Amino acid sequence: MNHAILLLSAPDQKGITAAVTDFVFRRGGNIVDADQHADKDANVFFMRVKWELGGFNVSRDHIASEFRPIAERFQMNWELYFDDHPPKVAVFVSKHLHCLHDLMYRHQQGQLPCSMELVISNHEDAEPLARQAGVEFVHSRVSPETKAAEEERQIGMLKAKGIDLVVLARYHQILSPEFIREFPNRVINIHHSFLPAFVGASPYAQAYTKGVKIIGATSHYVTEALDQGPIIEQDTARVNHKYAVEDLIRVGQDLERIVFFRAIRWHLERKVLAYGNKTVVFE
Amino acid sequence: MNHAILLLSAPDQKGITAAVTDFVFRRGGNIVDADQHADKDANVFFMRVKWELGGFNVSRDHIASEFRPIAERFQMNWELYFDDHPPKVAVFVSKHLHCLHDLMYRHQQGQLPCSMELVISNHEDAEPLARQAGVEFVHSRVSPETKAAEEERQIGMLKAKGIDLVVLARYHQILSPEFIREFPNRVINIHHSFLPAFVGASPYAQAYTKGVKIIGATSHYVTEALDQGPIIEQDTARVNHKYAVEDLIRVGQDLERIVFFRAIRWHLERKVLAYGNKTVVFE
Amino acid sequence: MNHAILLLSAPDQKGITAAVTDFVFRRGGNIVDADQHADKDANVFFMRVKWELGGFNVSRDHIASEFRPIAERFQMNWELYFDDHPPKVAVFVSKHLHCLHDLMYRHQQGQLPCSMELVISNHEDAEPLARQAGVEFVHSRVSPETKAAEEERQIGMLKAKGIDLVVLARYHQILSPEFIREFPNRVINIHHSFLPAFVGASPYAQAYTKGVKIIGATSHYVTEALDQGPIIEQDTARVNHKYAVEDLIRVGQDLERIVFFRAIRWHLERKVLAYGNKTVVFE
Amino acid sequence: MNHAILLLSAPDQKGITAAVTDFVFRRGGNIVDADQHADKDANVFFMRVKWELGGFNVSRDHIASEFRPIAERFQMNWELYFDDHPPKVAVFVSKHLHCLHDLMYRHQQGQLPCSMELVISNHEDAEPLARQAGVEFVHSRVSPETKAAEEERQIGMLKAKGIDLVVLARYHQILSPEFIREFPNRVINIHHSFLPAFVGASPYAQAYTKGVKIIGATSHYVTEALDQGPIIEQDTARVNHKYAVEDLIRVGQDLERIVFFRAIRWHLERKVLAYGNKTVVFE
Repeated sequence: MNHAILLLSAPDQKGITAAVTDFVFRRGGNIVDADQHADKDANVFFMRVKWELGGFNVSRDHIASEFRPIAERFQMNWELYFDDHPPKVAVFVSKHLHCLHDLMYRHQQGQLPCSMELVISNHEDAEPLARQAGVEFVHSRVSPETKAAEEERQIGMLKAKGIDLVVLARYHQILSPEFIREFPNRVINIHHSFLPAFVGASPYAQAYTKGVKIIGATSHYVTEALDQGPIIEQDTARVNHKYAVEDLIRVGQDLERIVFFRAIRWHLERKVLAYGNKTVVFE
Repeated sequence: MNHAILLLSAPDQKGITAAVTDFVFRRGGNIVDADQHADKDANVFFMRVKWELGGFNVSRDHIASEFRPIAERFQMNWELYFDDHPPKVAVFVSKHLHCLHDLMYRHQQGQLPCSMELVISNHEDAEPLARQAGVEFVHSRVSPETKAAEEERQIGMLKAKGIDLVVLARYHQILSPEFIREFPNRVINIHHSFLPAFVGASPYAQAYTKGVKIIGATSHYVTEALDQGPIIEQDTARVNHKYAVEDLIRVGQDLERIVFFRAIRWHLERKVLAYGNKTVVFE
Repeated sequence: MNHAILLLSAPDQKGITAAVTDFVFRRGGNIVDADQHADKDANVFFMRVKWELGGFNVSRDHIASEFRPIAERFQMNWELYFDDHPPKVAVFVSKHLHCLHDLMYRHQQGQLPCSMELVISNHEDAEPLARQAGVEFVHSRVSPETKAAEEERQIGMLKAKGIDLVVLARYHQILSPEFIREFPNRVINIHHSFLPAFVGASPYAQAYTKGVKIIGATSHYVTEALDQGPIIEQDTARVNHKYAVEDLIRVGQDLERIVFFRAIRWHLERKVLAYGNKTVVFE
Repeated sequence: MNHAILLLSAPDQKGITAAVTDFVFRRGGNIVDADQHADKDANVFFMRVKWELGGFNVSRDHIASEFRPIAERFQMNWELYFDDHPPKVAVFVSKHLHCLHDLMYRHQQGQLPCSMELVISNHEDAEPLARQAGVEFVHSRVSPETKAAEEERQIGMLKAKGIDLVVLARYHQILSPEFIREFPNRVINIHHSFLPAFVGASPYAQAYTKGVKIIGATSHYVTEALDQGPIIEQDTARVNHKYAVEDLIRVGQDLERIVFFRAIRWHLERKVLAYGNKTVVFE
């Protein structure tokens, strides 16, 4: 059974829920999920509605145009998705391959509703893993001299393939503002600390030096401010004085894999709405 | 700002969400929370809607009668609440007072939206705590001989006071089926294990003997089957071989307080729907 | 730097710690880890000592004979290990491959200090994964008729290869008492529930039916009583009414992988002592 | 049964464990706990030994002088405690009373092995709670003008009473360097965030603004650098977009109570060693 998913935000006001659910019902749709949230401080209303296409008496090509008057009445930002059109994903990775390895395994197990299109890396280490998973691998030799040209080439490939989502599976290059602006809220990073603690390089070494009793991992949308974008998911694990840096890394990598996976899956299921520096996650 | 809260379940079918939200919208209501869930196996739909009474153009006395046709159309079980009518609560307790102590403190802090009406105990230990919190204390000498008469007296007091919810804050007496039938899904217990493990007496000693590495606590509605009612909330904590039984008790009591509090608060906020042996919690 | 590790238990009495540490010190050993525990109820003392072989003035062949008088004085059960002799491991698996996949990846990453010798399965699904990891695969067609003969053949292979540890990575066959007696506290299982809840088959389906708010996984030594052996490690995760059985399975498999890995790693590091129905884990 | 507890640190070298345990054994002591740790980067060895005084053939007045030669040989920092001499504790608090309330309850329940001597506050709100617990209350009117004099008065009272440990149960005044130097690693604070994130004022509001999915609490020794002292304990809890600041506060206060309690209890049990910016906790 295929479904339509409507994700929207709008200035908070009466009647949005009723208007949206009534829209679906009058056309024969069976709503299987409906979630809403209002941020009273920001005065913004958020909603996600998912309904069965079977029995819905508007063809999928016409749903958007029929919905548009409602969207305009409430000044909505909105997107319409169909869950039989899985997003196309590109993975960027450097030398730490645990997140890539986990994503490939989960994709193969059917846990990630997407099409894995491309693995791009500034190193060659990931190539065997990508090939084994049947995903095209591109080696992009990024250096201070080549960075601008390589990014342009990367963007070209992503656009040519119609990539919907870029995930940075421990990609140790900073994307330029130009790159990020091409994919607003469409680039998800995994950072190996509980942000906002330990921004930047070597967070496990920072955590060791600080003597924390909890380590964490954070997955967020990438914005121009390093490690500052809207947080989608975080998790933590207990450690103690016995943990050397390599122990923090080992335990932390397990956190990274889980946190990154959840964030990506929720995005792919169209459960995440970013606004300002925050997210609403209808998990 | 006062609110109405509608809690309902019905055979799963199209149009319920639209009908309910449309009902509220057409009468000028501003929906602040709307949650829904469908149990596909049981074919039951659940919904909770909360809207502002300010601006709603039906007086609260007439809301139920206006909603009834919709409820009948969809064969709903439904209840309508107003959050300025806090439920009346009675606490049953024996000799372990940590949960009672915690509830009294949280109530005083405004964390429990209810009216604390009564503390009933088969011992006298709780009396100072109840008095200090300004809550009436009743000593009910339950013994095998007196149990039937005492329960009848308890039920009489609960009814006379219009008690909406009974919470068993470590009450070490088994309520009779007659008592439970008087308060269906209106008696919440805290059990000091992660049910269904360690049913019955002395679960910490059972956990110690078993050598578990995790202990837990469970809050559930009381049914006639001991420790088998619908689970509202559970949580766990790590332990290890160094923990003696008294350590399990100390750590476990912290779990009990948190789990019991959450379950009661969610019930008081009308976020819990019980069906069969399960609950839906719109937390 | 190589190390010796001494694991011991004895009737609880004065002087064991002093005798053991003095034994190491007088021979020039540098102790890098020392842990002890006394179970006051069982009146048993447990100890783990790890020291550097560099600078120790007894060759490794003579350590045991020099230590024996101390062991006899205190009536110890004891074992002496050297961390440059990694244990030999055999994995048994059926059709669910997530634990096997995880173990192979972690072994390749250097997280499991052992030699992976053998994968044995009653199905052929695991063969590609084993081959890819460079581990011998044996297909053992277990059926009610062949079970006795197949187990004999399995035991023969395990002995011929000098296997130290058997890990059941979701092996859906019950080992016979004869098999288990050949490998006392040398067979580690992963069970996909928080034992003692949900013993036996389909624990995720049991958890779904019960409506629990927490699921778990348990790794334990295998004894003749099904799912009742000494627990090494457990962990839990929150779920809610939205989780279908397949969601419980997905979330639970992440728990299984982590819990199983920790238990095996601790065993391989000689940090686990089993006694009666319990374990001491010097993690 | 009373116990002696020896806490020590020393430059890492061979033979410390043997020397200490041999010291106890030769005098008839039964060791009930022995923990050690070496920080290889800092080249420091840490140890905690606890033994029964019953049967120990040195009177408690002479233990220190008999041990001194060993301490000098290994250049130890060391402290000797007796668990029948509970530490004397003073609580500093401002207007948020949940931590104070929790400490008083736990002390009354026997969970805190100390003598509660004094509650000092810059407000009068805590007075009833202190009186009810039978603890002396001192109102210390701290303002920019009076701060120096008030701190001098506070220090005088703490010394006159022989206070061993000061705990800051949400005390919203910054202690002067002079005060802190009087009580090195003897002042424990609770900070309502997972440090190093959200240093300073209003961490819950900071967390809300940042949109984190996890909040935390941290208990640490107070040093002259605000919120930067050695961390003793931390814990975290999941939150989501539905949590308003007041929800973060409510959930966070439960964390604060648990984290603060654990840190204080471990300190009172002589299980914490601070060095540099870190702690070793032999929990």
